[in-house]
Amino acid sequence: MKRIFDIDPWLITTHELNSENKRLQESMTSLGNEYMGMRGMFEETYSGDTHQGIYIGGVWFPDKTRVGWWKNGYPEYFGKAINALNFVKADIYIDDQKIDLARNPFSDFELSLDMKTGVLNRTFTVFGVQVKITRLVSAAMKELMVSHYEFMSLDGVAHRVRFDATIDADVTNEDANYDEQFWQVLAAGHEQQTAFMATQTMPNPFKVPQFTVVARQSFQGGTQQAAHETEKAVTDTFNIEVPAKGQASFEKRVIVTTSRDYDDLTATIAASQHLTETIQSTTYQELYQAHQDEWAQRWAKADIQIVGDDAAQQGIRFNLFQLFSTYYGNDPRLNIGPKGFTGEKYGGATYWDTEAFAIPVYLGVADPAVTRALLQYRFNQLEGAFHNAKMQGLKGALYPMVTFDGIESHNEWEITFEEIHRNATIAYGIYNYTNITGDHSWFNGYGAQVFYNIARFWADRVHYVTRRDCYMIHGVTGPNEYENNVNNNFYTNWMAKWVLGYAVSHYDEIDKAQQAVLNIESKELAHWQDIVDKMYLPEADIDLHGKKTHIFVQHDTFLDKDLTPIADMPQTIRPINQHWSWDRILRSPYIKQSDTLHAMFYFPDAFTTEEKQQNFDFYEPLTVHESSLSPSVHSVLAADLQMADKAVEMYERAARLDLDNYNNDTADGLHITSMTGSWLAIVQGFAGMRVRENKLYLKPFLPEKWQQYSFRLVFRGRVLEVTVNQKETTVALISGKNLTINLLGADVFLTSK
Amino acid sequence: MKRIFDIDPWLITTHELNSENKRLQESMTSLGNEYMGMRGMFEETYSGDTHQGIYIGGVWFPDKTRVGWWKNGYPEYFGKAINALNFVKADIYIDDQKIDLARNPFSDFELSLDMKTGVLNRTFTVFGVQVKITRLVSAAMKELMVSHYEFMSLDGVAHRVRFDATIDADVTNEDANYDEQFWQVLAAGHEQQTAFMATQTMPNPFKVPQFTVVARQSFQGGTQQAAHETEKAVTDTFNIEVPAKGQASFEKRVIVTTSRDYDDLTATIAASQHLTETIQSTTYQELYQAHQDEWAQRWAKADIQIVGDDAAQQGIRFNLFQLFSTYYGNDPRLNIGPKGFTGEKYGGATYWDTEAFAIPVYLGVADPAVTRALLQYRFNQLEGAFHNAKMQGLKGALYPMVTFDGIESHNEWEITFEEIHRNATIAYGIYNYTNITGDHSWFNGYGAQVFYNIARFWADRVHYVTRRDCYMIHGVTGPNEYENNVNNNFYTNWMAKWVLGYAVSHYDEIDKAQQAVLNIESKELAHWQDIVDKMYLPEADIDLHGKKTHIFVQHDTFLDKDLTPIADMPQTIRPINQHWSWDRILRSPYIKQSDTLHAMFYFPDAFTTEEKQQNFDFYEPLTVHESSLSPSVHSVLAADLQMADKAVEMYERAARLDLDNYNNDTADGLHITSMTGSWLAIVQGFAGMRVRENKLYLKPFLPEKWQQYSFRLVFRGRVLEVTVNQKETTVALISGKNLTINLLGADVFLTSK
Repeated sequence: MKRIFDIDPWLITTHELNSENKRLQESMTSLGNEYMGMRGMFEETYSGDTHQGIYIGGVWFPDKTRVGWWKNGYPEYFGKAINALNFVKADIYIDDQKIDLARNPFSDFELSLDMKTGVLNRTFTVFGVQVKITRLVSAAMKELMVSHYEFMSLDGVAHRVRFDATIDADVTNEDANYDEQFWQVLAAGHEQQTAFMATQTMPNPFKVPQFTVVARQSFQGGTQQAAHETEKAVTDTFNIEVPAKGQASFEKRVIVTTSRDYDDLTATIAASQHLTETIQSTTYQELYQAHQDEWAQRWAKADIQIVGDDAAQQGIRFNLFQLFSTYYGNDPRLNIGPKGFTGEKYGGATYWDTEAFAIPVYLGVADPAVTRALLQYRFNQLEGAFHNAKMQGLKGALYPMVTFDGIESHNEWEITFEEIHRNATIAYGIYNYTNITGDHSWFNGYGAQVFYNIARFWADRVHYVTRRDCYMIHGVTGPNEYENNVNNNFYTNWMAKWVLGYAVSHYDEIDKAQQAVLNIESKELAHWQDIVDKMYLPEADIDLHGKKTHIFVQHDTFLDKDLTPIADMPQTIRPINQHWSWDRILRSPYIKQSDTLHAMFYFPDAFTTEEKQQNFDFYEPLTVHESSLSPSVHSVLAADLQMADKAVEMYERAARLDLDNYNNDTADGLHITSMTGSWLAIVQGFAGMRVRENKLYLKPFLPEKWQQYSFRLVFRGRVLEVTVNQKETTVALISGKNLTINLLGADVFLTSK
Repeated sequence: MKRIFDIDPWLITTHELNSENKRLQESMTSLGNEYMGMRGMFEETYSGDTHQGIYIGGVWFPDKTRVGWWKNGYPEYFGKAINALNFVKADIYIDDQKIDLARNPFSDFELSLDMKTGVLNRTFTVFGVQVKITRLVSAAMKELMVSHYEFMSLDGVAHRVRFDATIDADVTNEDANYDEQFWQVLAAGHEQQTAFMATQTMPNPFKVPQFTVVARQSFQGGTQQAAHETEKAVTDTFNIEVPAKGQASFEKRVIVTTSRDYDDLTATIAASQHLTETIQSTTYQELYQAHQDEWAQRWAKADIQIVGDDAAQQGIRFNLFQLFSTYYGNDPRLNIGPKGFTGEKYGGATYWDTEAFAIPVYLGVADPAVTRALLQYRFNQLEGAFHNAKMQGLKGALYPMVTFDGIESHNEWEITFEEIHRNATIAYGIYNYTNITGDHSWFNGYGAQVFYNIARFWADRVHYVTRRDCYMIHGVTGPNEYENNVNNNFYTNWMAKWVLGYAVSHYDEIDKAQQAVLNIESKELAHWQDIVDKMYLPEADIDLHGKKTHIFVQHDTFLDKDLTPIADMPQTIRPINQHWSWDRILRSPYIKQSDTLHAMFYFPDAFTTEEKQQNFDFYEPLTVHESSLSPSVHSVLAADLQMADKAVEMYERAARLDLDNYNNDTADGLHITSMTGSWLAIVQGFAGMRVRENKLYLKPFLPEKWQQYSFRLVFRGRVLEVTVNQKETTVALISGKNLTINLLGADVFLTSK
């Protein structure tokens, strides 16, 4: 592990520019505001290796898929997050010498992401001039991006800066099949001292809407020299005089509007003009302040403070910063993309990660309305889920593995068709919301349509095995994607059983109107109960290090594998997904992310401590955590089992997964949905937060090397503050009505100060 | 089933032109000469649905693959058989009216493939003129294709025919991802009353050679009016005067040369000119006669005659005709593509089909040199096989699922990485050659490198399971591609064990020089023997229709499936690959082609009759035969088990698979490698042909509805003729030394007449 940024509680800073780490650096210095975002690539020309990536929420392209197309039921397209037009771009010349840090000698380089204020600062000295650039993607005005420049002469003479500011539509995706472009230019030009470009996604045969995006640049400072347009770009050229002493400022502002918010091209262009005008007389300082105020409010609600471990402190803040940059609940049409605005790998906007990992966090740090928006998103896509189930010849609703609009848009059969455990997690998300908030109205109302149609899917997906008088589920991929097409994956079977059982036992509670729409006969409910009663769950007695151990078996033939623990294998094979061919990974015992243990993470009270311990002891040594979603689950479970060292080890991995590039893939972008993991590890893990029968339970411990940690928690209209240090654990009721909670096994009555 | 061609012993004839069946018709009327071939599309314009396909042996393109590209070890490209330039094309006008049978009223349509002479005849009357077209792809001169036209006035008045003969490079593949073209034009023009076009495959980044193809057209008859070129086509325009009484002939000849035979573009163009000149004064009748003589010689050696069942007779001849059109052993660089020259589905030129299904036929109908050429092809690709094994991190040689040059060029992980049983069949092909011909020299020489490196692969691919003290093979796809990534597929395990056992027991026989190259230590051989001794083979006692039955189990969890026989399912789900989603197929018990039974097909003497019967009774009712390779295997096994009706039913399906479009996919092209199946069913099945310890065994029966069948058989320098009718079975020694064979259980000494 080589850290490329310094340890600091609030900053992500480096003084090195290393071409080998450039993409990694870009990923880690991404900015976003839920509406749009971008990687931390340079504004000016950089001729070395770089991944220029700018993305806009909810804007995507359905790319043809032709591998496996002959398999019946195959998705027609692969939904891609697409690299939008590049509106950050500039060519900067100092005394006619073009800045290109890949070629020019430079000094005093500093790149620093300030998480407190949400800006990216960069400084360097080149050709005798110190250049300071501050970039912000406004948290206060979603359409606004600003790059602010300061030029200062360091060699005692005056300099002339030429600044060619560009909006460039000549952009491709890293993952394009044939370097083809997904955008066409609709209009471009100069209007009232601004330049704009309007692009539209290419036509597609799949009835997916074509998105129009307009970017308009305006400027503060300098003297305009020229303006020109090419087929794919608009450019404004400015001169900026840098005095021999003192400095010169310059500012490029960009307003981005899209057809998601406006009816047609004309309206989208007009809106960009209008919004540009509204901030024409606003100073940079005012724009900056408004942006920073928003971030201050977010941190006031959500900050976790760790005393005694700056690396851990930096990790959790980085994660919350990037999570909030991706999603903050303002647009109910959006969800939480796995790479956010930091890269285009994976495609798609919505994964089961949202319900599995993000909802528990938003339930703890935000108003329940944010979570309801995420649940409602699924309700709104119910038609798509019916369609997906039908494509597999099954009843009910199957939520997609990957989607933008509810229709499955992933194209690997072992995932698309088989990683169906996701469908149980959608139901779990509803349960989790209901259990934590105590608000049953969503489940009983909208939620029933989602939940019971998911139950219908499971009831149709199992098959009855006469010779063994039980129900089985064949042909699935569990959360451990390092095994495909297995039979009786414990986790999938257990979750299917849970969904059906919960559905049967809560049927009488749901609204009559919802029951009428669902039209479930009592015969159907009885059949569901029969499945619950006779669901096959693989388990076995094994010998583990000479000790008889009873485990739930990952799937039917898992125990026939060569079960050498990963610790006994050479380090050179890690990560195995970069060293082993796919078939070798599949037949190995190495687990990408928690699978059997995942059920225990979701339902810690449904298993005895002994069960949890025996399964943890068996599976954890086989787990390679090559999914970013894995370490946090293990941290929470280890904490539950009072394995403090393991819990902390796993926390550190979760918290600094991207900062320390654990899986050697952060250059492609950050693991946004995993960013939730460090919060889960601290709150559900170290602090032992649970909600049982409407009561909040906390059972905190303090990691040995920490002096103190504290966090705030939203719970049923209250805000609590939990502080844990070597002396004591205190829980303060910051706002809301008095409340009884269970702290370290004893009921405690909390009153407001 | 709707037959679109009439039943006839030697002809494939229809009088209907139905736009719905056009592609099917084109597939069935394909012509080829091993060097090149084409679908039976019309020469002249046809504006209805059609698949214009012309292919040249050994000419291919490595197309990028991007789905699954992140899986380590994934092939870089998908090898595609590519549609070459269209040199058959012509626009024909009668009195300035363009012929287009999709639009014009016409009468007296006849389309007829004459299998005896190897030509495609077509007749129709349009605009008062009867047009007769005969096409041949010369079996006597590999580079030559001729379309011969006769025009006759039927309305008593003279007509003028305008004939625009074109070579067209504006061609795409049906399976192109983005309708992209695989060809670029290098040169084109008119030289000495001929027109030519030279095309080259597009550049590729994979170091696969770019192929150059030159087509040159010349003419007999008519009066040339014009010659012109566009960017992608050359055209010659002729006038042909059709008298009021009598007829006018016209002929387009095409010579095709390629960079496979000539050093550079200049040489390839010059060769096409030279070859065109050599036949300039040869008459059509002479070209036709030379072609037909070749076909007569082939039929004299290989024809099977069936008396009393014209449908069966037509089926076997159609199969042999199309098989010989695809491969006749003249070019050792070629193999037997699964669609031959009749379509582009599947890609690739070489599958395990060659060793499994084609070699046994060529061993029976041709000189052993033809089979040796096929074996040598594998030896020549040993480096590729080492590469393929290495890509999976394994020792030894892994022959590819699909290839043109030895490197795996298929891109579905469950096949590429897991359908490794193919590697055992390569070894079986060598064994089969050795066993049938009695020639051990190839095995002991070249063959040892292939065989023992395959054995090395298997020894590295198994894993030892401590708790059960056995070796297992996890993560494979058996011949039944309707299950993927299964564990302990009986067939795969059995074959791996056989390869290792054969390798150990024959090691002392192979040439010392080969042993030195192989460098196998005695420890390695001992380890192979240990694997042979402890290979896990799944078997079970089950209850089948109330009877206790012992079976070999397809794979570990097969018996947990819902085992409803396919006969109990509605007919509307067939073929299941066109009605069920992939996951549903995978978890169903329905078998695409023989899998467990396949071992019994390869090694009928290695299993008892009881074993064969019990397994056949269990698996056959679950088999949907949606692979064209399945029915013949079942026919041979059923014959072995004296289940004559089942053997005949399966024969009929094998023999007329394409003619009757059993699997509803013949429109994409013919199933060339399955064409061998009807020969296998008759010779190995009905006639019970086996070779045991250097002796030929025959045990014929006569299908009830046949009066007689007879076939010739090449065996160890002899040609035998076997005739089976209701009275008797006779075996005549047509040529070669006296021989003792075993006929119906008794040794018979054969002498030449």
